[in-house]
Amino acid sequence: MSDPILVIGNKAYSSWSLRPWLALRQAGVAFAETAIVLRQPDTAARIAEQSPSGRVPALIHDGLTVWDSLAICEYVAELAPQAGLWPADRAARAVARSVSAEMHSGFVSLRTTMPMDLKRDRKGQGMTEATAADIARIEALWEDARTRFGGPAGGPFLFGAFTIADAMFAPVVTRLETYGVAVSPVSRAYMDAVLALPAMRDWIAAAKDEPWEFEP
Amino acid sequence: MSDPILVIGNKAYSSWSLRPWLALRQAGVAFAETAIVLRQPDTAARIAEQSPSGRVPALIHDGLTVWDSLAICEYVAELAPQAGLWPADRAARAVARSVSAEMHSGFVSLRTTMPMDLKRDRKGQGMTEATAADIARIEALWEDARTRFGGPAGGPFLFGAFTIADAMFAPVVTRLETYGVAVSPVSRAYMDAVLALPAMRDWIAAAKDEPWEFEP
Repeated sequence: MSDPILVIGNKAYSSWSLRPWLALRQAGVAFAETAIVLRQPDTAARIAEQSPSGRVPALIHDGLTVWDSLAICEYVAELAPQAGLWPADRAARAVARSVSAEMHSGFVSLRTTMPMDLKRDRKGQGMTEATAADIARIEALWEDARTRFGGPAGGPFLFGAFTIADAMFAPVVTRLETYGVAVSPVSRAYMDAVLALPAMRDWIAAAKDEPWEFEP
Repeated sequence: MSDPILVIGNKAYSSWSLRPWLALRQAGVAFAETAIVLRQPDTAARIAEQSPSGRVPALIHDGLTVWDSLAICEYVAELAPQAGLWPADRAARAVARSVSAEMHSGFVSLRTTMPMDLKRDRKGQGMTEATAADIARIEALWEDARTRFGGPAGGPFLFGAFTIADAMFAPVVTRLETYGVAVSPVSRAYMDAVLALPAMRDWIAAAKDEPWEFEP
């Protein structure tokens, strides 16, 4: 089997690309990247060549194309079962999938008014009533997971050790930083743990080095 | 272990409730239902008592609450592995998860202009350019799955036998009926297979019997 190839957008702006990229890195799976620059005249055509949904990310592996961030993460969890990308306990796993799915289809206001932007400091921008409600729900969800499943001895992530749930919320962590949102001590500690991951540092450094800059 | 309880909204209108309900029925899992009538003064409060995201559906099982349609379907697949709610083949399973995830977060125009409505005939309503594009993508996706993984001997569903992918698209099948959308022969045959499921007939009959009627 050859290494999978992850098709992604700009690291500065493509929050959906970050999620499976981080899952692959945390699982220790060797993979190649193909970057398609967003907002260019040929962007749609280039993505359509790689992804049947017309969206990034997509994962190409031995002739198979898997698309959508969450489906790619599930595929990586199956490829590397030893990495424990889902909690081993069935109840914890069910809740990890619940919060991941809630992120996958929800928090539209946060995603709209505070788009991921790893190139600029946007402190104070983007806050609306609906976005504040999204952030309140996310902080409640983080605290609930940490309280019920994280545990002081289990590691600093939502379910203790790193899981797909953390990959799904990683772009939210960067948004709360970029837009300077005040958060609870539990959220702050969790965000620091995510931002300290070598893989996150690598992604953010690469994002800052990208030559393309536009409003995400 | 006690039987799980699925918390749902109106059967006539709650497309997200139909998905895990159909997965539970197709998997042969015994379960109870709790219905919360949507659009009532106490709806938000009643849902908040059952679901941490403030949304239906939610599944309550032995003190554990699992929420979000897709996460509940994954939980049911784990509860009843013999039901084969995901394809056994890894590649087919990855594509089934891809189309399920694409449905989970996408097709916003279709969901907006053609909301599920099992009480009324709305032929000719709701079509827009964006909704037509959503439907074209869905039909392409159905045909691709049927061609690559369904196969003439494998059963009439997207991946041959019934899977979670079919549960995810079941409300789309009802929409295309309700709004009288012209579809390809492949789509028509697939839709007929879904609509012929005894579980779908039961859901639709119950929806028609509900006393509440409003614009979904």
